[in-house]
Amino acid sequence: MAVLIPAGTHLALTYGNRPLAATAAQRTTMSDEAARFLAGMRPLFLPDALTSVLVTRERLIQERENFTATEKIVEDELIARYGLTLHRETIGGVPVTVVTPPAIAPNRRDQIAINIHGGGFFLGTARDRVGLLMARELGVRVYSIDYTLAPEAIYPQAVNEILAVYRELVRRYDPANIVGVASSAGGNLLTATVLAAKAEGLPMIAALGLFTPVTDLTGVGDSIVANDRRDGLVANLRVEVPARFYAGDEPLDSPGLSPVYADYSADFPPTVLTTGTRDLNLSDIVRLTWRLDDAGVQTRLLVSEGMWHGFHWEPVLPEAIQARTAAVKFLHDKLDRSSR
Amino acid sequence: MAVLIPAGTHLALTYGNRPLAATAAQRTTMSDEAARFLAGMRPLFLPDALTSVLVTRERLIQERENFTATEKIVEDELIARYGLTLHRETIGGVPVTVVTPPAIAPNRRDQIAINIHGGGFFLGTARDRVGLLMARELGVRVYSIDYTLAPEAIYPQAVNEILAVYRELVRRYDPANIVGVASSAGGNLLTATVLAAKAEGLPMIAALGLFTPVTDLTGVGDSIVANDRRDGLVANLRVEVPARFYAGDEPLDSPGLSPVYADYSADFPPTVLTTGTRDLNLSDIVRLTWRLDDAGVQTRLLVSEGMWHGFHWEPVLPEAIQARTAAVKFLHDKLDRSSR
Repeated sequence: MAVLIPAGTHLALTYGNRPLAATAAQRTTMSDEAARFLAGMRPLFLPDALTSVLVTRERLIQERENFTATEKIVEDELIARYGLTLHRETIGGVPVTVVTPPAIAPNRRDQIAINIHGGGFFLGTARDRVGLLMARELGVRVYSIDYTLAPEAIYPQAVNEILAVYRELVRRYDPANIVGVASSAGGNLLTATVLAAKAEGLPMIAALGLFTPVTDLTGVGDSIVANDRRDGLVANLRVEVPARFYAGDEPLDSPGLSPVYADYSADFPPTVLTTGTRDLNLSDIVRLTWRLDDAGVQTRLLVSEGMWHGFHWEPVLPEAIQARTAAVKFLHDKLDRSSR
Repeated sequence: MAVLIPAGTHLALTYGNRPLAATAAQRTTMSDEAARFLAGMRPLFLPDALTSVLVTRERLIQERENFTATEKIVEDELIARYGLTLHRETIGGVPVTVVTPPAIAPNRRDQIAINIHGGGFFLGTARDRVGLLMARELGVRVYSIDYTLAPEAIYPQAVNEILAVYRELVRRYDPANIVGVASSAGGNLLTATVLAAKAEGLPMIAALGLFTPVTDLTGVGDSIVANDRRDGLVANLRVEVPARFYAGDEPLDSPGLSPVYADYSADFPPTVLTTGTRDLNLSDIVRLTWRLDDAGVQTRLLVSEGMWHGFHWEPVLPEAIQARTAAVKFLHDKLDRSSR
């Protein structure tokens, strides 16, 4: 259980000292682990006026360093526990961490996953827990991309970097043997990248797994109001950080920044999306799901009871295991279909 | 647009004079029609102590009469608009309204739908809008069951009545040519009935469409807390009315009253479920979806942005049309598969 660290740390900037409320009726339908975990969250709720003063370029970089150091402990434990091997490669000029599980089933030797870590565009690394967990749970090599973060890089630099790796990987591997997985802001970047790849005429990969993705940077939707102060991710920071430090001069509703406004067609990869009833991005995710559905893309929406933004990221939380297992089943199904 | 009547009337008991809040951020991601509709809702929020005094047997029956009279106007308009024909039959000793669309495609002549109306177990009739809409949108004859309501009938009378009709219809028609659709409390009854049919060894029908079903009468879950005062359906009434007037002496967590606690197996019919981010029953629905998933049942969960309990019931609301269209696609797919 040592890998269960307070979820607030996944956006360290939001770490405060006010707990999230949960009534007995709400705790009843969560696992005991999840109820304890939720009780340990301490998001930092700041008035809007304060966030614009306190959230500085320097502060973001400092938070990132803290986050990387804290996460390293969890990552090292996961690497040891699952016997994973990591090596660094430069692909298309971009640093990539390749995570290899200790044993790969014969039918999965030519299959890979691309992983785009989360962290609000400004923190996280390619050693990201989800990349490690996916190597274990998908049972394939994972190419986890160390895209350049904000505020040092603004849109579209990260998308272009991920696209450069995509371009190279669809040459090295049969695209039907590749899936993409991504968390939170990483889900935004991966979706934007696949759209850019399609615009460029690159082949589509077999499937996407978007874990509590951010799909709309304009700050609208039902859940960004209704789930504010119910989630570790706080609305004003969720809106302000990307707008000030990632978007650059691009309008926030441009499809490259807010893929919920993009045009999709039926040849976009089948996509499984996870969210939770407490997720600040619940509306982002249901809206993208409809957008894909309406274009004829195959989707599967997984909504977990009482779960918050990024819950999938907890290695041993029962709800996280359930959601990842269902997502992995979807992704395996697409990989297996293509290899028939 | 005349069929757009205030949604509060679908649970007339909850009709009060306090509007539901919606910020600009929340209205932005709803259709204009939905935003206007939400602004017109006036749920009646009562302290718990008052509901136990005000909600009487007589009041429920009075509300039912009002509801039936108000709904008749909408139903008559839908019947005329879509050229539907209604006749009454007694099947297995139970009154059924059979709704026939004006034209049935040759491949659908032997296909039917069973419809179980909603209304908190205590109101509604087999002329129910959803039965009418499904005759039109599924393009098949709909057998809409006039089960006996609470408080006159308590559990398991309605389930037994629906089961009697089910027993007869799977004799008359190929079960692979039958789908079941149901709304709210009707979703509870239909699920309980299919479980009872399975226990009895009756054949399973092709698919179920559960529109914002009530799956847990014990009053637990994230959304019954978080979406209270965000939905036309109010938590204390939602919990109290079935417990006092429908459940009888049965424990509220028995699978027949709360199908989310039932055991499912992979031969349970494939099921499409609809809900919305404002739905008081959002948690009921995501929990049942996982329960079915985990048993190996094929599911499709449709969550509509900003939508409330029973929104699917509005004939021309864009979000309702979108959700019904996706549900109908799922149901058609199962019917078409079985006829191959």
